[in-house]
Amino acid sequence: MTHPARPWNFSAGPAALAPEVLAQAQRELLDWRGTGVSVMEVSHRGRDFMAMAEETEQDLRALMGIPDSYTVLFLQGGATQHFAQLAMNLAGPEDRADYVVTGHWSQKAVQEAMPYVNARVAASTEADGFRSVPTQFEVDPQAAYLHFTPNETIHGTEFHHLPESGDVPLVADMSSDILSRPLDVSKFGMIYAGAQKNIGPSGLVLLIVRDDLLRRPGRPMADIFRYARHAERDSMLNTPNTWGWYLAGLTFQWIAAQGGLEAIGARNQAKADALYAAIDGSGGFYTNTIDPTARSRMNVPFRLHDEALDATFLQASAEAGLMALKGHRALGGMRASIYNAMPMQGVQALIDFMGDFARRHG
Amino acid sequence: MTHPARPWNFSAGPAALAPEVLAQAQRELLDWRGTGVSVMEVSHRGRDFMAMAEETEQDLRALMGIPDSYTVLFLQGGATQHFAQLAMNLAGPEDRADYVVTGHWSQKAVQEAMPYVNARVAASTEADGFRSVPTQFEVDPQAAYLHFTPNETIHGTEFHHLPESGDVPLVADMSSDILSRPLDVSKFGMIYAGAQKNIGPSGLVLLIVRDDLLRRPGRPMADIFRYARHAERDSMLNTPNTWGWYLAGLTFQWIAAQGGLEAIGARNQAKADALYAAIDGSGGFYTNTIDPTARSRMNVPFRLHDEALDATFLQASAEAGLMALKGHRALGGMRASIYNAMPMQGVQALIDFMGDFARRHG
Repeated sequence: MTHPARPWNFSAGPAALAPEVLAQAQRELLDWRGTGVSVMEVSHRGRDFMAMAEETEQDLRALMGIPDSYTVLFLQGGATQHFAQLAMNLAGPEDRADYVVTGHWSQKAVQEAMPYVNARVAASTEADGFRSVPTQFEVDPQAAYLHFTPNETIHGTEFHHLPESGDVPLVADMSSDILSRPLDVSKFGMIYAGAQKNIGPSGLVLLIVRDDLLRRPGRPMADIFRYARHAERDSMLNTPNTWGWYLAGLTFQWIAAQGGLEAIGARNQAKADALYAAIDGSGGFYTNTIDPTARSRMNVPFRLHDEALDATFLQASAEAGLMALKGHRALGGMRASIYNAMPMQGVQALIDFMGDFARRHG
Repeated sequence: MTHPARPWNFSAGPAALAPEVLAQAQRELLDWRGTGVSVMEVSHRGRDFMAMAEETEQDLRALMGIPDSYTVLFLQGGATQHFAQLAMNLAGPEDRADYVVTGHWSQKAVQEAMPYVNARVAASTEADGFRSVPTQFEVDPQAAYLHFTPNETIHGTEFHHLPESGDVPLVADMSSDILSRPLDVSKFGMIYAGAQKNIGPSGLVLLIVRDDLLRRPGRPMADIFRYARHAERDSMLNTPNTWGWYLAGLTFQWIAAQGGLEAIGARNQAKADALYAAIDGSGGFYTNTIDPTARSRMNVPFRLHDEALDATFLQASAEAGLMALKGHRALGGMRASIYNAMPMQGVQALIDFMGDFARRHG
């Protein structure tokens, strides 16, 4: 099977998957594990799929060092649905919850939770245009949880320290930075992440929930929205996204083969350092205005000194095999998303192109 | 690429996909539409995916003859989530809704809706062990909707007529019989279906909603649960299951290439007729006790005259390349699910095996 040279794909999500993962998925698409059929064609409750599902969870537990006192769930609905669903599960109708707002996604998390909890903004960086992350704020000790967004995909900020929340459980939407470096899971009440950046294809959402939070009463709701019910049924309360679960499993194996989260973390830091150095060293041709202590290692927004060059930049970069560099419509400019599946070689190709473009158009 | 002979896959779901669909998905897994990357790796809001999504909807509209006054949605959560979500959207907290209960799935539909609507069982066939479908019942004219399950995947019953509901909108969970024959969509208020039988892989749910029902106020809830918001954003309110959507598109093209729903419907009827004839003509070796006027064309449960032979039957059928014939644990015995992707050749292979097995063990 031939195909054209693979472009370097800087899409913010759905994002590039590891080529080894895609190649294996292609190889076994018609015959998975000797069944003679596709992984998409077998019962999720059958022996083969159940074994794969269990292996996948164990691989993730090993990668992240997830304590036994946490439940892992593979659900549907994306992070957005769980903005609402986590409030339904972790808070009662009269409860309060605190939110840290650092950009588009954390704002959305508050908004979707509002019908289910008295959501309070405990800290916000809106006043500085979401160019930083808060370092100090007061958490309501009665809050059901403190929610934050460790990495803001659109604004390009990232927490490099954990918010202090005392006894209030920390809940994190890690959609765009999960599995990007080692993490102390025991500091969190709940971590969740849409799959389509560092885990697998879209349509799958991963949740890691401290068991005591599963026992909170929540409110009257359908069983299908109740995390505790999904936990009792090992994420098979209804038919899961079996293809997504399978690709997540291949991705976890791939991360382990790369050396695990220590090695991935070092590589991600080197990639981000090189790209920010190229931007900062461009003599103002390219700019990134995020507080250097809060720059994202995953999503690097930047602007050209003259936005009249944007269209030329996008066309020339696409012709050079650099794909999906257009910034989010809310901010304009460019954005390079450099998740786990983007190797240093791809980042270097971008840096080389940017240098060349600046020389030609400077 | 070599693989063993493909078995005939009678799985109830996730179920067999058309081999032509799988082959195309495999071929273009690393390079979709000349992008150089997988369909899983592109933005759902990019030009290529948006074009595919729109074509897929138009293909479905053409296949099913969906009137312009209906909205088509490609969402997540499976039919089970929408048991709850449809009640949240189509009914206010004080409203009543009527349900027809004909087996496991329609019971589940009532149960998940209960926190959101005053659900009443308008008719049930529980008294006869769910071996038939009701022909007469009184609908509450004030009901927000009448819900029914045209095909019960576990019990193996199917409506071959529509319930009369007057002005009360008819809502149908067609997970296991959508696209299996021509349908007059204009008779329905809403049709929905999990993808994993006749549409594509699991993790995608299709909804066809009459536009006036989208304007019902529902209740306070997060935007992500509101059908009207998904409609405004063409099912891209959040990141959809892009792989599922893509495979649904390939499947719709495949159905059209088979001759559309008329041809598929004739083929499905012939498959079911042949299998029921083999059961009924087995001199009692095999039995199906469903009212003949309510037998499912999609899911054919049957028992051996001596259940001590079940294990032998399952092992021998697997060795003969007939996969996943074990009945649902709630009913025992056998079940052959013969959705669109199962050709007459596969059904004939099953019939031949059954005849041979009966001769050897009769």
